[in-house]
Amino acid sequence: MPLTALLLNCTLKPSPAESNTQALMDEVVGVLEDLEVACSSVRVVDHDVRFGVSSDEGEGDGWPAILERVLEADILIVGTPIWFGVRSSVCQMVIERLDGTYVSTNAVGQYPLYNTVAGVVVTGNEDGAHDAAATTLFNLSHLGCTIPPNADTYWLGDAGPGPSYIEAGGRDHPYTRRTTRWMAHDLVHLARMLADRPIPPQRNTVGG
Amino acid sequence: MPLTALLLNCTLKPSPAESNTQALMDEVVGVLEDLEVACSSVRVVDHDVRFGVSSDEGEGDGWPAILERVLEADILIVGTPIWFGVRSSVCQMVIERLDGTYVSTNAVGQYPLYNTVAGVVVTGNEDGAHDAAATTLFNLSHLGCTIPPNADTYWLGDAGPGPSYIEAGGRDHPYTRRTTRWMAHDLVHLARMLADRPIPPQRNTVGG
Amino acid sequence: MPLTALLLNCTLKPSPAESNTQALMDEVVGVLEDLEVACSSVRVVDHDVRFGVSSDEGEGDGWPAILERVLEADILIVGTPIWFGVRSSVCQMVIERLDGTYVSTNAVGQYPLYNTVAGVVVTGNEDGAHDAAATTLFNLSHLGCTIPPNADTYWLGDAGPGPSYIEAGGRDHPYTRRTTRWMAHDLVHLARMLADRPIPPQRNTVGG
Amino acid sequence: MPLTALLLNCTLKPSPAESNTQALMDEVVGVLEDLEVACSSVRVVDHDVRFGVSSDEGEGDGWPAILERVLEADILIVGTPIWFGVRSSVCQMVIERLDGTYVSTNAVGQYPLYNTVAGVVVTGNEDGAHDAAATTLFNLSHLGCTIPPNADTYWLGDAGPGPSYIEAGGRDHPYTRRTTRWMAHDLVHLARMLADRPIPPQRNTVGG
Repeated sequence: MPLTALLLNCTLKPSPAESNTQALMDEVVGVLEDLEVACSSVRVVDHDVRFGVSSDEGEGDGWPAILERVLEADILIVGTPIWFGVRSSVCQMVIERLDGTYVSTNAVGQYPLYNTVAGVVVTGNEDGAHDAAATTLFNLSHLGCTIPPNADTYWLGDAGPGPSYIEAGGRDHPYTRRTTRWMAHDLVHLARMLADRPIPPQRNTVGG
Repeated sequence: MPLTALLLNCTLKPSPAESNTQALMDEVVGVLEDLEVACSSVRVVDHDVRFGVSSDEGEGDGWPAILERVLEADILIVGTPIWFGVRSSVCQMVIERLDGTYVSTNAVGQYPLYNTVAGVVVTGNEDGAHDAAATTLFNLSHLGCTIPPNADTYWLGDAGPGPSYIEAGGRDHPYTRRTTRWMAHDLVHLARMLADRPIPPQRNTVGG
Repeated sequence: MPLTALLLNCTLKPSPAESNTQALMDEVVGVLEDLEVACSSVRVVDHDVRFGVSSDEGEGDGWPAILERVLEADILIVGTPIWFGVRSSVCQMVIERLDGTYVSTNAVGQYPLYNTVAGVVVTGNEDGAHDAAATTLFNLSHLGCTIPPNADTYWLGDAGPGPSYIEAGGRDHPYTRRTTRWMAHDLVHLARMLADRPIPPQRNTVGG
Repeated sequence: MPLTALLLNCTLKPSPAESNTQALMDEVVGVLEDLEVACSSVRVVDHDVRFGVSSDEGEGDGWPAILERVLEADILIVGTPIWFGVRSSVCQMVIERLDGTYVSTNAVGQYPLYNTVAGVVVTGNEDGAHDAAATTLFNLSHLGCTIPPNADTYWLGDAGPGPSYIEAGGRDHPYTRRTTRWMAHDLVHLARMLADRPIPPQRNTVGG
């Protein structure tokens, strides 16, 4: 069975506005598809996701439908722009909503995101990628995800205001191209390993 | 062949002063040894490690001998106290010294820490464990390590000054005990998987 | 003329749900009122604030009315809960919306928040106050605010899940009580100084 | 009496190696001297500063002599390079040593750094300035310093490895030049205000 990847774009801008983060996410998708991973993307702000920390915040909440897709994916990738040096409010909202998974388990009693592999994509006109990626990957590891080596890719301009990824031609930036390739490859390798040999429920279950 | 783990204690206090971080690291060692992992610990501040970002800062530098052990371990665990809300200066110094590994590769051309699994232990009298763990695990993933789910354990008291792990009886704290167990188990599972099936050198090599 | 303070509560929970962050903010208000500061609070999530980085995101956006009050206050206090070790999505959204102030100036050509004094209130059941406060105070200083000594107060429980501020009786926690008092006093002293003697527009104006 | 500024350079490289951070600090000194501030700089790594959290770690410790100068300055500026997305180990060590000031007070019973104004200078070949500056300014505010608006200046290149400040010609970067000027001016304005009108010891004293 082919591996599946879900990419959550946490831009602040609703469709159809152009998203720099999506543009870099699309590069990751390109490599993943070369590796025969079935990819799909969600632009979170287009759905009516509510603030909260449960898996369902009631009538009209857009999160439950997204969560279902999160839980089915072998690979989960969170894409975020940087604002004020850190990840976006939409990205923080997504992580807060994943708090709701802590009250359920997978079939063997672990957190539901066990055996999911996670990566992060960050774009900004300057500074903040390490903070955004570190916080997000750490949160995802707490939720049960495995983090491969070089699980992030980002593009940034130099100090101060300036053009963003698309306008600045970030697509051709050698460092970002290389880390995009590494990230995609390592996500796939770890996801295959965990698909073949899931982490056993040995003293890491919720009631264990 | 049994798995090996190296634990680096980044306390500011030289031996023989009591180290709260070592006390929690010893709990992790206890679980790892139950799982038949051969563990050894280094108290970094006891060795004459120099500031710098190369693997050898010259005559008398204590780092090369430690680095050799880092590169041999299947599991690398960094333990740090919290000072001013973040990881210790000794921990930051250790990460800076690991920068030197970026200029060499393993036998197949990846960063030398590929196929190493990493975890973090944090103690403080209050606040800062998420930041210390997130930054450290992210840095280690950039260096090539794989991060399993729940790869950290920590103990903290409530807001403001107060007793530390040993004095406060942190050894019996249910949350810390549980995360210690989870961390050790998941480190071992991932390390076994990577020992059996290393990440292939597919487009993730330094010149690749 | 008496000083004025505006407090923005960035809880995820709409009214009338009980807010731990509001409870600690109310303690700050108590000290500020003793010092003859006129205080008002806004629970941001009760207003229909949109994601974005401008000062007006169009029809129905609740931010412009809040921003008007922000710009009138002598003292601006941001209160946030901790989720996953960092400030809430609502808090991040508030900071993102303040980005819109960068394109306007005060009467002498500085950023509009020059001569405003800022502080932060944080509550969580554990870990993350330093990160939440540091990021928020730094962002506010970039926007033009002055940060007095000891400009934050927080309450946290020990490691792992546990009761929050109200339930745990955080109101009586000596450290939190002391920092609440210090914060309020120092905010008032700096605000009085800046009211009497605003920072002159000497080479710190936007076009300067 | 003219204002005085002390600048602590937290580069990892001992003299006489070229320091990018010093180069940007020298730009700040240039503006401060235009404003008639008497400046002096210390390259911390050239002194034998010990790890620890007291003000004197014994025989041969280089910190007490530096601390004396810190306590005399009206303006304290910490300069740090970025390593792995955060401030340097030397910078963290300096902050840890300032912990020792918490056990003493100024003449009126406040922390000794009350009425000192603080700023931060950061250089790196990429990413991490917000984190380094936010953490450092927040720590200094906890220690008693006042943080003016725009209290930081930094230079960074774009994503990934690349040339540093001097080699890249960062001296001519418009954003860095502007923030250097703003930072110096605002530090001076606040320092003058606090010299004329120190924060009164009103319920913000250590035993208060």
